[in-house]
Amino acid sequence: MLVEYDGTDFHGWQVQPDVPTVQGALEEAVETITSASCRVTGSGRTDAGVHARGQVAHVDLPTPHDAFRLRGSLNGLTPGGIAVRCVERAEDTFHARYDARRRRYHYFIHTQPCALDRHRRTHVRPVPHFDRMRAATPDLLGTHHFGSFCLTQSDTTNRVCTLTHAQWVEEDRRGFWHFEVAGTRFLHGMVRALVGTLLEIGHGKRPADALPTVMDAQDRRAAGPSASPEGLVLERVEYERDLWPEHERKD
Amino acid sequence: MLVEYDGTDFHGWQVQPDVPTVQGALEEAVETITSASCRVTGSGRTDAGVHARGQVAHVDLPTPHDAFRLRGSLNGLTPGGIAVRCVERAEDTFHARYDARRRRYHYFIHTQPCALDRHRRTHVRPVPHFDRMRAATPDLLGTHHFGSFCLTQSDTTNRVCTLTHAQWVEEDRRGFWHFEVAGTRFLHGMVRALVGTLLEIGHGKRPADALPTVMDAQDRRAAGPSASPEGLVLERVEYERDLWPEHERKD
Repeated sequence: MLVEYDGTDFHGWQVQPDVPTVQGALEEAVETITSASCRVTGSGRTDAGVHARGQVAHVDLPTPHDAFRLRGSLNGLTPGGIAVRCVERAEDTFHARYDARRRRYHYFIHTQPCALDRHRRTHVRPVPHFDRMRAATPDLLGTHHFGSFCLTQSDTTNRVCTLTHAQWVEEDRRGFWHFEVAGTRFLHGMVRALVGTLLEIGHGKRPADALPTVMDAQDRRAAGPSASPEGLVLERVEYERDLWPEHERKD
Repeated sequence: MLVEYDGTDFHGWQVQPDVPTVQGALEEAVETITSASCRVTGSGRTDAGVHARGQVAHVDLPTPHDAFRLRGSLNGLTPGGIAVRCVERAEDTFHARYDARRRRYHYFIHTQPCALDRHRRTHVRPVPHFDRMRAATPDLLGTHHFGSFCLTQSDTTNRVCTLTHAQWVEEDRRGFWHFEVAGTRFLHGMVRALVGTLLEIGHGKRPADALPTVMDAQDRRAAGPSASPEGLVLERVEYERDLWPEHERKD
């Protein structure tokens, strides 16, 4: 299933006792439909407050269900902050997390007063130097050790990721920008740490060529603070083959 | 001042006792700044739940204030659902309502599941025939009696308006559309009544050439129901001369 959600309403993706989570809401809906307890497996977790327009999840159902009717039932049984955009029957071997080849996130900011988008953009003040951030961004591309941008402490985990796209985009309205980033995998808190570090460069607190040194440190303390969650959207997860009808594939 | 607001949080523009309104919040902020009671006059009212990205209002201050600092103070003193985008000193004779030459509204809908935009778009089901709505829309252009699209009952009021632009626009995402309409003046509830009537045409409840007959009736009961407020945004108000710096003028 292709899932959109408003992170404002949930304590993140992953099911937890006594708090609303996206995974928990989807599993409750599936349980109502199937009368069975089924795990809904996402392509990855998102933290509390982080949004998604294109999260992908799979569920193994005990009996066959029509995909289009299942989409309607899931939307009827989940809160308004969750929208199941598509449901398609997958191959038995499909796994939303292990089979994902590429993820794409956008981080939205505004530097001028804004009301309508305030739950989905982070207010950045003072106005950063976007030319400095743009100059620094290409240092992220390619295969690097991203341990300095990872919240989780563990010596045994692989911290090497390959970023294939990273770009600051100015939008139609003055002071509205977003950071686009895509790669094979992302570590816990990685996009927010990247944005927080780039904003420090934009604010002149670090030189524009600081990123290689930060990456070499392999230490979270070498990077900038985490940018706040409300600006972050998981836009898309890609697999070996296209999962959705063509009309859902456009960016 | 150029004002954006999230209508979800307010009982409309116009000040009313005991409920939060946009005008009331702005007047309280001005009173805190000036220690005087000042009327904030908008280009027009918006109903409860209706949003604005480009409402224009004026206020007569008892003493001079720097426009940029005033903008900062107003944003600091109003709730997050209000953003004062620009403040400029106006001529003494300027009147936000009487001097307005043209207003522009957009009405946003979605026909497919959506979570992130659900407070700013109306869910329309079943999917209407947009080609029928597009065929009917040009009948609105020009100068007509719009009494059939007006909520207010009164025999003495002028119900003639001139619409200069009316168009259905398909957006980048499947099932996301908006209706753009601009004109010299709009009656109470007019845009929502126009959209409600066009959706009836799109749903095959009225013929595509129904609008001239509805207008001729000069009776609110001849038109369709009011489309719900959360999809409506007052985008822009135009005056004889440009009020704002060039960077705020783009659509």
